[in-house]
Amino acid sequence: MALARVARSGLRRSGGTFGSYRNEDVVCEGVSPYQCFIPSLENVRENSNMSLFHGIKKVNHMSFWSRGIRVTPHYQSPSAEMIAQASDTEYDQPSYAGLEATKPGEKPRVVVIGTGWGACRFLKGLDTKIYDVICISPRNHMVFTPLLASTCVGTLEFRSVAEPVSRIQTALAKDPNSYFYLASCVGIDSDKHEVYCETVSNGGLPRDPYQFKVAYDKLVIAAGAEPLTFGIKGVYEHAYFLREVNHAQEIRKKLLLNLMLSENPGISEEEKKRLLHCVVIGGGPTGVEFSGELSDFIMKDVRERYSHVKDHIKVTLIEANEILSSFDIGLRQYATKHLTKSGVRLMRGVVKEVHSKKIVLNDGTDVPYGLLVWSTGVGPSNFVKSLNLPKSQGGRIGVDEWMRVPSVEDVFAVGDCAGFLEHTGKPVLPALAQVAEREGKFLVELFNKIGKQNGGKAFSAKDIPLGDPFVYKHLGSMASVGGYKALVDLRQSKDAKGISLAGFLSWLIWRSAYLTRVVSWRNRVYVAVNWATTLVFGRDNSRIG
Amino acid sequence: MALARVARSGLRRSGGTFGSYRNEDVVCEGVSPYQCFIPSLENVRENSNMSLFHGIKKVNHMSFWSRGIRVTPHYQSPSAEMIAQASDTEYDQPSYAGLEATKPGEKPRVVVIGTGWGACRFLKGLDTKIYDVICISPRNHMVFTPLLASTCVGTLEFRSVAEPVSRIQTALAKDPNSYFYLASCVGIDSDKHEVYCETVSNGGLPRDPYQFKVAYDKLVIAAGAEPLTFGIKGVYEHAYFLREVNHAQEIRKKLLLNLMLSENPGISEEEKKRLLHCVVIGGGPTGVEFSGELSDFIMKDVRERYSHVKDHIKVTLIEANEILSSFDIGLRQYATKHLTKSGVRLMRGVVKEVHSKKIVLNDGTDVPYGLLVWSTGVGPSNFVKSLNLPKSQGGRIGVDEWMRVPSVEDVFAVGDCAGFLEHTGKPVLPALAQVAEREGKFLVELFNKIGKQNGGKAFSAKDIPLGDPFVYKHLGSMASVGGYKALVDLRQSKDAKGISLAGFLSWLIWRSAYLTRVVSWRNRVYVAVNWATTLVFGRDNSRIG
Repeated sequence: MALARVARSGLRRSGGTFGSYRNEDVVCEGVSPYQCFIPSLENVRENSNMSLFHGIKKVNHMSFWSRGIRVTPHYQSPSAEMIAQASDTEYDQPSYAGLEATKPGEKPRVVVIGTGWGACRFLKGLDTKIYDVICISPRNHMVFTPLLASTCVGTLEFRSVAEPVSRIQTALAKDPNSYFYLASCVGIDSDKHEVYCETVSNGGLPRDPYQFKVAYDKLVIAAGAEPLTFGIKGVYEHAYFLREVNHAQEIRKKLLLNLMLSENPGISEEEKKRLLHCVVIGGGPTGVEFSGELSDFIMKDVRERYSHVKDHIKVTLIEANEILSSFDIGLRQYATKHLTKSGVRLMRGVVKEVHSKKIVLNDGTDVPYGLLVWSTGVGPSNFVKSLNLPKSQGGRIGVDEWMRVPSVEDVFAVGDCAGFLEHTGKPVLPALAQVAEREGKFLVELFNKIGKQNGGKAFSAKDIPLGDPFVYKHLGSMASVGGYKALVDLRQSKDAKGISLAGFLSWLIWRSAYLTRVVSWRNRVYVAVNWATTLVFGRDNSRIG
Repeated sequence: MALARVARSGLRRSGGTFGSYRNEDVVCEGVSPYQCFIPSLENVRENSNMSLFHGIKKVNHMSFWSRGIRVTPHYQSPSAEMIAQASDTEYDQPSYAGLEATKPGEKPRVVVIGTGWGACRFLKGLDTKIYDVICISPRNHMVFTPLLASTCVGTLEFRSVAEPVSRIQTALAKDPNSYFYLASCVGIDSDKHEVYCETVSNGGLPRDPYQFKVAYDKLVIAAGAEPLTFGIKGVYEHAYFLREVNHAQEIRKKLLLNLMLSENPGISEEEKKRLLHCVVIGGGPTGVEFSGELSDFIMKDVRERYSHVKDHIKVTLIEANEILSSFDIGLRQYATKHLTKSGVRLMRGVVKEVHSKKIVLNDGTDVPYGLLVWSTGVGPSNFVKSLNLPKSQGGRIGVDEWMRVPSVEDVFAVGDCAGFLEHTGKPVLPALAQVAEREGKFLVELFNKIGKQNGGKAFSAKDIPLGDPFVYKHLGSMASVGGYKALVDLRQSKDAKGISLAGFLSWLIWRSAYLTRVVSWRNRVYVAVNWATTLVFGRDNSRIG
């Protein structure tokens, strides 16, 4: 849990050292080099600064491997405990252990990068009688993101929103030639039809980081996106994102820690207020839902179980424009009114800098905080940026209407990392679970169809008719705002007309809809039990780890 | 989660540097100095070696505070993220913020150190109409230790075995003068009737580590014990203990990581076997139960969900003498037979050294491992060792039959940290939950009685008759061995006669007994739901964090 934070601090500290390399030939264009290679702590302690040079050397070497091989930023990989003790010679060896291209007579191999909504929907539907499948991701589970905010305060438990990928597609665990690899993809060679990977490590493998390659017949990139920070100083170091289960764990730990620290004798009133000031940046659905959950937590649980400090805890939601801008105006007004009534302070502002105990806004205002959650949307990851593939508007991997990446063969992309190319005449779709899921569903049907016509192997699908292209139809949006209230907006687009609801009934719809959408029966049971026990016993406030 | 491990590595690395200080005037007699002060990682990175010197200085300074002030080892405190940036001047200031002695007319203040079985049973029963209560511990919850082993493989969830202390004694959250402090006790001045504390930190307090004092009318030390390592090299660095929820979290993470790593292409057969070799040291109930859970996990879940590597995973239980030595001989034989049948290899051996990938036994045998769990019992902690109080056999805090610490007034001790003094004629009781709980119950009844007779204040209980002394009656022991089998030994002592059972019926007794012992209804619901979902859906294998 703590490692991601620690890794981030590692990043911060090493920043200075790396600064001087900014103009050298490191592979990460457009991002500062220390975002590309995060030396592990083991490293820093053991080899002192030498390890940093190793790191740099490594990145340089990697750029010589072949076109398109790049380093995935490791803060994206919550479980990545990367250790760079590799000697130079390793990188000069041209051959990597791994899966070679499939032979005639073997099933075609589909490689899927990622375990988000798009990847998992694809995996779920894949006909494993036709295909072998390899899934590569630094996390072995899918996160049910719409309910993640609820886990930060204990309304739901962490495991209720995590769905192991080997349950979504059992072939990964059982079929002799299908595998899940807990690894980051660091590069793609679309000519050779190979992807290059680096495992997350326990520091005990013969080579560390352990690298391998996987040859594919078809490749599906569903690697997702990264939080946008707009280059604002201090965000990575001090703010929490809310995109992974371990982010939610860290937020919960920090919140409970601050509640307890503020009870210590001798803490000044001002310091108490700072410790208990929860600031949320970004008024999209995630920011609003998290603020709502926080205010529920404060109104019910903090009052009962931290009654010494209950009057000091406050929530502020800072947004540059309007909250929930994609929602109907009536719903926006409802949300604003409801949040304000629940004690959430809504503030217009643009963040200029983030410090360890305060943020500074563009107008010069200082906002001291104890917990800072950053949810201002997502943009293309460094991995996606580094790929030598066509790009859509906004820097995503460019795809056509069949989710194919043109100019290379057998490469497809879905979800937040993919966007329609301009020539398709379609807009780049928003980074939503339902978009990714629908694309995954479309693509897997396409794959099953191609496969049945013997088009599964590399370079063999050219003459197979693909059928209708992908068409996205928005089903509407939902967001809970706390206090048994939610918004349901069933309009098909921002400017269309349609039904929109707000209040308790919407909240019932919100809960029922998500309960039925939870992937497995196991987690459906747990979500229901969590909701019930929260109602009866309140939220759990043990601080673990 | 990862922090404890990281902290342990910090310890390891700094060992060399501290070595030369062994003979100087540091406060920790009998233990190597680097066990006393663990520099945080922040430190090591930020200030390089300077921080280590700071650390030493600090310890020296601390020894001047007053008698008996010592440093708690921080690997005991799972959530301790200690940062030593304090300047020297801080330690020269004689006054600490904190709670001063209670005034006449105010309720007497009981300070309880710890949140284990003894402390929590005491807290639960305390009459808060008579007393104000302060509880000080680096964790804010009690761990239901008998079921902890089940959480390592996902049979139970972590939060099902954690009980927030503010639910056990609600006055801690609600009463105006009662508090829970998330802090380590670092020293006691029994003359001044004061304890000295250091908070776990988030790196954002005005002084770090934040120190404060609490004056007491009555003090109850229930700080527990520490795992015994017998001075064997490498244990702290490489092995996992199984005493806290975050230990279980780490074990689960490591187990799942190794399962996934071993599936990577190009990993040799030998390396696979090593990664998947789970070694348990110590054949007491914890070691046996953990081995049993592991074999259940392997026989059911690994076969289904990691079928590529299912034949490589093995469990070895190493014990120097006999497993479950306190149990009836018939039960021991049953356990041996059952574990062997379940695939657990039982091995006689004494560990000489622990390395990162293998242990070396006294007879020179190398045992390669991927996961090493250490459960060879507990002994007095460095905190207890450092206290200037009478000691029992085995180095625990010496108490009389009323759990009072003689020679000082108003100080009591219960649980694993307390032992009867020789003059009482009673044996030092085993480090068991039921002992600690019974002692806590006895003491709280004593406190409530004294309180009713106005003996709650400091120095005021001298003439109050204490009633009958504490008498321990052993209720028997239970241990599950996996595969729906358990042992129930109802003999009152090792050599007594009495009922003992083994098998499925015992397992039902074991489950029912623990289900009714779980403290809160919330967790009772969760334990039952966990057991049911494990039976129906199997164990959760998402690797979080």
